[in-house]
Amino acid sequence: MMSSFDLSSYLSSKREQINETLSSIFSNTSTKLVKAMKYSLMGGGKRIRPILCIAAAETVGGQSQDVIRAACALEMIHTYSLIHDDLPAMDNDKLRRGQPTCHVAFDEATAILAGDALLTLAFEILSSMTFIQEDQLLNWMNVIHTISSAAGYRGMIEGQMQDMAGEARLLCLEDLENMHALKTGALIEASVTVGAILGKGSVDQIQRLKIYANHIGLAFQVTDDLLDVEGDPYVMGKDVGSDHSRSKSTFPALIGIEKSKQFAKKLVKNALKALDSFDNKAHPLRAIAYYVVERKK
Amino acid sequence: MMSSFDLSSYLSSKREQINETLSSIFSNTSTKLVKAMKYSLMGGGKRIRPILCIAAAETVGGQSQDVIRAACALEMIHTYSLIHDDLPAMDNDKLRRGQPTCHVAFDEATAILAGDALLTLAFEILSSMTFIQEDQLLNWMNVIHTISSAAGYRGMIEGQMQDMAGEARLLCLEDLENMHALKTGALIEASVTVGAILGKGSVDQIQRLKIYANHIGLAFQVTDDLLDVEGDPYVMGKDVGSDHSRSKSTFPALIGIEKSKQFAKKLVKNALKALDSFDNKAHPLRAIAYYVVERKK
Repeated sequence: MMSSFDLSSYLSSKREQINETLSSIFSNTSTKLVKAMKYSLMGGGKRIRPILCIAAAETVGGQSQDVIRAACALEMIHTYSLIHDDLPAMDNDKLRRGQPTCHVAFDEATAILAGDALLTLAFEILSSMTFIQEDQLLNWMNVIHTISSAAGYRGMIEGQMQDMAGEARLLCLEDLENMHALKTGALIEASVTVGAILGKGSVDQIQRLKIYANHIGLAFQVTDDLLDVEGDPYVMGKDVGSDHSRSKSTFPALIGIEKSKQFAKKLVKNALKALDSFDNKAHPLRAIAYYVVERKK
Repeated sequence: MMSSFDLSSYLSSKREQINETLSSIFSNTSTKLVKAMKYSLMGGGKRIRPILCIAAAETVGGQSQDVIRAACALEMIHTYSLIHDDLPAMDNDKLRRGQPTCHVAFDEATAILAGDALLTLAFEILSSMTFIQEDQLLNWMNVIHTISSAAGYRGMIEGQMQDMAGEARLLCLEDLENMHALKTGALIEASVTVGAILGKGSVDQIQRLKIYANHIGLAFQVTDDLLDVEGDPYVMGKDVGSDHSRSKSTFPALIGIEKSKQFAKKLVKNALKALDSFDNKAHPLRAIAYYVVERKK
């Protein structure tokens, strides 16, 4: 059944649609600020969050074009979080996706403001009445609330705080899972939820998709930790071993490489279980669950 | 007519209402992140933007409680912009409102994230259906769009970019006005516009209030520049002369102190003119126009 689904072409075609929409969003200005925003936004990300958003919409019977702008807003928020996390005052990373990070390519002040501007632009896009049908206003308001809650002080940003605090001491497994649930899990859950809302899924469908999202979100992180130990720096476009060198708490460090791999597989199994009652339209989400742990970067 | 209006008690009572609502917004957590957010947010600002928002709503016949949450969101966005502008990579300011700036009181990473979190929280508040009546959904969506556009890459953030670029060279008067129109004018205009939208003002009323806002926004900046030259550092709670020491372009530097004062007065006169067709309910806005240029801090 699943073997007939070509994930690779699905991902390429969605990426293309997302990249085209992202490019079309900026007005015809080329200020230094816009250049820095585009530099990071168009720098070749995997587009996992917007693709999850679209795939979730399709799973409940919606279409790409219903959610494409929300999907782009999610990618902007993800990109802003990377720009700020890379700053000297935080992770002080020089490379991202094989390219100099925003503050290296531009300067620190511009990188801070480009991040701020991408976060703000996400909400400008989500609230543009040019693209919202009046009978969908309530759904879009829920989307804005879902995304802002997930990205905020009880979600992604608190996750980054805990991640930085975790560099000073070894976290226990529970704290590590909780940190990831906030730092990356919250926005991944929001991506899937937003897709399901705008695809007009039922409350029950949205609930099951959230369970799926929580499991693949954590599986994604466990895999990231594994790639930092075992990955190929050339393929990944960034240094490996950086978690270890900053004595970050990771799954391999806490439970070992083999148990981490088993854990990731178990998470994927549970993610797939949450999709049991969906039909063939959930094939992209199913294939993405496998992809999350099998990817090489 | 105006003499009967007591601006001082009006400002105090609105400030109290704003501060109470701001405090009530945070959930019962006291993470380091929340402490940093509250430190800057509750650090005794003038609350000009939220008060303008409320006063604009009242001017068109609305009430405080219709707009109080939008007013608080505006103050959060203003506060986030101050936290980020104060960072070492930008203005590198150590004092704000007489207290150590956020990155001095906490640390740089926490200050960046506290700013991010206040910006995000603004949109969480603006989209909370607990406080939005269904027949007001379109108005609130317009409010989110108005605020995000004003605060974004074609508004406030671009203004900060231009302000930093302006430290390296002397701006002409037109560039200086344009920079201020973006850096502070855009959010002040948004504050008044949002108040007028949620107070259910007509398109024509909103238009006239925008003209008012643009004039007092610029008058506010001219006065800020004058206070940096002539103000009392004890009253202002920050250093004076700092614009001069970093050779920033200012109105007094470009056109002299006396002409700057005349310019501010002319702006106030034009702001008042835009309010001509409004009744007594516009008295707070009228009094604020005078206050903007007569304040000592």
